[in-house]
Amino acid sequence: MTVLSTTGLARYFPVLDWGRRYNRRLLTSDMIAAVIGTLMLIPQSLAYALLAGMPPETGLYASILPLLIYAIFGTSGPLAVGPVAVVSLMTASAAGQMAATGGMDHVSAAIALAFLSGIFLVAVGIFRLGFLANFLSHPVTSGFVSASGILIAAGQVKYLLGIKASGDTFLGIVESLLAHIGETSLVTLAIGASATIFLQWARKGLKPALVRLGIATGLAGNLARAAPVVAMGLTTLLAWGLDLEKMGVWLVGTVPQGLPVFALPAFDLAHWLDLVRPAILISIIGFVSSVSVAQTLAAKKREKVVPDQELIALGAANIASSISGAFPVTGGFARSVVYYDAGAETPASGAFTALGIALATLTLTPLLYYLPQATLAATIIVSVITLIDFSVLKKAWSYSIADFAAVTLTIVATLVLGVEIGILAGVTLSILLHLYKGSRPHMAVVGRVPGTEHYRNVLRHKVETYPEILTLRVDDSLYFANARHLEESLSEMVADRPEVKDVILLCSAVNEIDLSALESLEEINRRLKDAGVRLHLSEVKGPVMDRLEKCSFLKEMTGQVFLTQHQAIASIRGVEKDAPDRSRAEEAPIEWYI
Amino acid sequence: MTVLSTTGLARYFPVLDWGRRYNRRLLTSDMIAAVIGTLMLIPQSLAYALLAGMPPETGLYASILPLLIYAIFGTSGPLAVGPVAVVSLMTASAAGQMAATGGMDHVSAAIALAFLSGIFLVAVGIFRLGFLANFLSHPVTSGFVSASGILIAAGQVKYLLGIKASGDTFLGIVESLLAHIGETSLVTLAIGASATIFLQWARKGLKPALVRLGIATGLAGNLARAAPVVAMGLTTLLAWGLDLEKMGVWLVGTVPQGLPVFALPAFDLAHWLDLVRPAILISIIGFVSSVSVAQTLAAKKREKVVPDQELIALGAANIASSISGAFPVTGGFARSVVYYDAGAETPASGAFTALGIALATLTLTPLLYYLPQATLAATIIVSVITLIDFSVLKKAWSYSIADFAAVTLTIVATLVLGVEIGILAGVTLSILLHLYKGSRPHMAVVGRVPGTEHYRNVLRHKVETYPEILTLRVDDSLYFANARHLEESLSEMVADRPEVKDVILLCSAVNEIDLSALESLEEINRRLKDAGVRLHLSEVKGPVMDRLEKCSFLKEMTGQVFLTQHQAIASIRGVEKDAPDRSRAEEAPIEWYI
Repeated sequence: MTVLSTTGLARYFPVLDWGRRYNRRLLTSDMIAAVIGTLMLIPQSLAYALLAGMPPETGLYASILPLLIYAIFGTSGPLAVGPVAVVSLMTASAAGQMAATGGMDHVSAAIALAFLSGIFLVAVGIFRLGFLANFLSHPVTSGFVSASGILIAAGQVKYLLGIKASGDTFLGIVESLLAHIGETSLVTLAIGASATIFLQWARKGLKPALVRLGIATGLAGNLARAAPVVAMGLTTLLAWGLDLEKMGVWLVGTVPQGLPVFALPAFDLAHWLDLVRPAILISIIGFVSSVSVAQTLAAKKREKVVPDQELIALGAANIASSISGAFPVTGGFARSVVYYDAGAETPASGAFTALGIALATLTLTPLLYYLPQATLAATIIVSVITLIDFSVLKKAWSYSIADFAAVTLTIVATLVLGVEIGILAGVTLSILLHLYKGSRPHMAVVGRVPGTEHYRNVLRHKVETYPEILTLRVDDSLYFANARHLEESLSEMVADRPEVKDVILLCSAVNEIDLSALESLEEINRRLKDAGVRLHLSEVKGPVMDRLEKCSFLKEMTGQVFLTQHQAIASIRGVEKDAPDRSRAEEAPIEWYI
Repeated sequence: MTVLSTTGLARYFPVLDWGRRYNRRLLTSDMIAAVIGTLMLIPQSLAYALLAGMPPETGLYASILPLLIYAIFGTSGPLAVGPVAVVSLMTASAAGQMAATGGMDHVSAAIALAFLSGIFLVAVGIFRLGFLANFLSHPVTSGFVSASGILIAAGQVKYLLGIKASGDTFLGIVESLLAHIGETSLVTLAIGASATIFLQWARKGLKPALVRLGIATGLAGNLARAAPVVAMGLTTLLAWGLDLEKMGVWLVGTVPQGLPVFALPAFDLAHWLDLVRPAILISIIGFVSSVSVAQTLAAKKREKVVPDQELIALGAANIASSISGAFPVTGGFARSVVYYDAGAETPASGAFTALGIALATLTLTPLLYYLPQATLAATIIVSVITLIDFSVLKKAWSYSIADFAAVTLTIVATLVLGVEIGILAGVTLSILLHLYKGSRPHMAVVGRVPGTEHYRNVLRHKVETYPEILTLRVDDSLYFANARHLEESLSEMVADRPEVKDVILLCSAVNEIDLSALESLEEINRRLKDAGVRLHLSEVKGPVMDRLEKCSFLKEMTGQVFLTQHQAIASIRGVEKDAPDRSRAEEAPIEWYI
């Protein structure tokens, strides 16, 4: 197999695959989606740049080259790559911290974050380490996104009021807002509030209103999506016409015209090291939300996305964003759904959108001077309100206390301590709780159901046992999290039952024995030997047995390995294996029915 | 139930339990063990103080109050609490780093470490969080202990040579030794080398030699254990007689006479926060090795140790060590075995040892002035050589590549980057590998073994399947680590099989479905619905079903839940549940025997 075969190349450049099958029908669909996408993306790019603490033009830059690059590497047709709310918030937080400690300025830190995040995603994709995203459980992710939505909305209120406020945490933001609330600019508030109300209404009300005006349903739906552009246009006109800048309304101001100048970020090892952790968190959050949108949309058409390739594509898009002088990007949920509805068929739709944004950057930037920041804040607030959904709390409460704990901690920590600590706390607690559950697997002392060869839990069934034989069934794989627990439980059980001479571990539910558990078994064997008790195994699964045979444990084990539990009991009690002595068994047993 | 019942109190103060049953026979046994223990502990206390970078008297202080406190709270008779090698090394490393950054001096940092470690252990014991120790897998622990042994031995060589050297890592130590090797003091080397050779020989050779001299075997064994005391005595005499101090031999010097002055460590939040992580690592390493010794020894007599109570006891002992002005302690392996062999029956043996050490502190300290540091270094080296055992590498190599990777990383990182990074790297990698394994559970498409109601893997058995029904069996619980994998696998399988109309998840091996997995199932259900495919479950376990019934998933699910896989197939194919139409089944099937 040559690496340069077409199949090989197409694996890493999916464009070679769908590109060859590209035709006029696909082109038309993709172009229509791109027009709608461009109209949505212009206000969002500018708004999320504001949210990320970046100059407005970087939002546009983040929506040109990254989209072209994703079109080459990506596997999802409708996935809309670009700046998104949560990732922009995380960027603002990490870059802000870096700037506060004086290490790098905010813009350079955000550019470095995009670069590091890109390198990380590409590496994870190439080495197929996508499983790392599993650390982020569904409930933790949804709690985090909701809490981030609150932080984002709260953080934008200052632009609606035209006051200077700051803060990385919910309380910090609220406190700062209250301290400055007296400085509210009423004109700004009027613009901000009108824009917010209009956009919030437009989300559901504009399309039916347009339809009532006699516009065709499809066109009405697409026009409704341009509501933010309309809000921008109207408020810009107003700001220009009434010269609102003189009345203290903050405008976007001068935006450089023209395409980004490409440059590698200035390498700075010492400070970059501090950005590695936030970059990894940004990457994982971005990837998890992006791939889940892509999969949901692909499944509707029974198409596939390739997660490892998506990692590479998103990574490449982030590197592209970085060398465009912009900040981290990923696939956005709302925009992707719009692309899908608009009929986007291939990643070319994104490439066409990139061209649209490039055109806007070349021509429209002078008009942005008069755009009120309050309008952008309104766009952000209306978008993120849809992210805030605490129903996961109620669901977790009724379903699983462990999940409830993880999601509650994530939400509280995100709001109170900030995004980075929030997500880390949630991830850490879910892993801890998982290992905790794994550390106490269900174990049952079993006995024989009279007259059968079935062995069942003595606590649940009326079964026969023998005082000199203890059979323990472990309902889980044996590995480091429960190895010590097994040691302790067996030591205790044997200490409590001085009459026991033989211990049988019934391994029917054991899918794996790792080295920790093997060493625990060796330790258990030694301890039982010291106490004059033999250790046997029964019903060991094939793959587990293969491994055990590779090491010396079975030789050192004082007892035997039995194919079935019934053979084990028969053999230990000294009766024929194939013809268990039923009469004796029925004579002797002590019935444990606790 | 009143909390103050005797049973309740005895739970937290085991001394109330064994104390009531104490008698002359137990007293005699414990006293004999204590005499031998004291003779062993004097040189080790001084040596491990040297290793921890602490003044020699603190080693003695760490062997008085902590032992008395352990006797009150502890549950293991022979466990010998006090300074031990690995924990002393970790103390030296953490306190050294703190001192280097100028935050606190070395001694205060070590005292704070003991205090924090004590608080942590007590908290873990009270809240029954002992499962945290499960993070430390057997192989990682043994790799870490071996690597630490090498670091410790290498770090003591400078005392054998009488040269100033430093370094926290193996390469650093070796480099520093080589740089200063020209300054070697030959007299020091002569003393150090003789002591090392004598002690190494004494470990195995002294007892038989004494027996040959006509001493009874038991007494000879106990006398042999006093070899380090003999080495100390002889070299001290030599140093005094020949005035070796003038010849450049480093002596222990002035050791304050008298018992420690008890005082709480000076609270210093800012710097203590930096010590929390090393304190936790010290606690966990200390607890894991201590409890495993205690359990091994208890099992020999079919006695029990109570891990949660051991945590409290070790925690209290560390707090005691801290207020004595000393450093972290734990239960030592070698000393405990000696106690056990010497017949220690109850924790009182430790209390008597404490009295012995207190007596020595009051009377013998002036004699310590002339004790050469090289003798202490020899004591340490001979002790830790027994810790170094890399057989775990060979075992892991043949048994499990994941465990091999974890133990290799632990050893290399400990030697090259130091103890803290070493242990963290090992723990992190083993959790990562565990989640990686969990993220790709074994899954099988199953079909019916002809003529039976058994369903087996299509890849391993000649079975019947139907093109419109896909049955997937997952051989693991469904939880966050594999939830996304299940989503992806099912999406892919359904995309690859356009004829599929029904998907059955066979849940016979699913012990748990956490909220992440539930949300994945909901997502799978939605995606399949969009693709016109129904989702069914079969053979769901009772406890899993109980939980599913608490939420709305079963109502939203497009298909049904079936008691058995056979009923599922029969019902979906539209035949009577109780009388499967065998003739039709045998007519239609496509046989998948790939």
